Amino acid sequence: MDDAHFMKMALQEAKNAMQEEEVPVGAVVVQDGKVIARGHNMTERLQDPTAHAEMIALTAAFNALGSKYLPEATLYVTVEPCPMCAGALYWSKIGRVVYGTADEKNGYRRLAGSNWALHPQTKLSTGCCAEEAAQLMKDFFKARR
Amino acid sequence: MDDAHFMKMALQEAKNAMQEEEVPVGAVVVQDGKVIARGHNMTERLQDPTAHAEMIALTAAFNALGSKYLPEATLYVTVEPCPMCAGALYWSKIGRVVYGTADEKNGYRRLAGSNWALHPQTKLSTGCCAEEAAQLMKDFFKARR
Repeated sequence: MDDAHFMKMALQEAKNAMQEEEVPVGAVVVQDGKVIARGHNMTERLQDPTAHAEMIALTAAFNALGSKYLPEATLYVTVEPCPMCAGALYWSKIGRVVYGTADEKNGYRRLAGSNWALHPQTKLSTGCCAEEAAQLMKDFFKARR
Repeated sequence: MDDAHFMKMALQEAKNAMQEEEVPVGAVVVQDGKVIARGHNMTERLQDPTAHAEMIALTAAFNALGSKYLPEATLYVTVEPCPMCAGALYWSKIGRVVYGTADEKNGYRRLAGSNWALHPQTKLSTGCCAEEAAQLMKDFFKARR
């Protein structure tokens, strides 16, 4: 199965967020070809601005594996992580991160300048299903203006 | 009441972590002169490397106030936050952060280069009870070597 297969599942999580009037970002964590955790933005429902899709999916993955490190796992997330989530990914020592669309405003790559925030052993791929991920964000913020 | 008063409460949280064989970092969140939330490192107990003192204390504070922003609150933490926790503090729009000892290895200020990670409206004070906070960390890692 390819990256687009799992990114589509992350996009479905983002759509679930949208339906709940949350910023439409979704994430899944995959290991050995299976989804072991998923999450979407819940900052409004929980009134907790740290309840990002990645944080929720990561904590679910630690619980699923009973491990605080995820060297064999891949996180798929529809939008580039913010510095907080990039920092969480660093601590997880996750094997791979795949994100869809870049976040020019809040993404860690612009804010942190370089690739400091991911663990040296974490591989990074970007751009998978980026247009669909970006369109969800545009639709959400357009409706709010 | 002064900063040292509340930092001593954060230090007590750090000592609680130490007793549980967790990295000894503690945090309290204070508003209107009262502690509204507290936390200490629980990464081992929860097998979750994102379970830092600051993350736990912040989520408890959002719950206590029923608000996802903390502009009137101060977070006291014994050790300089990592980039993940600094990112969480950014999203919280917390009024003030007071940390004790700098973390040359994992602290956000060295890793991120400047003050980007805190919200522009967040005031920062450093060095309060720094020696005691640093000594706890030294004792912990010395015992592990």
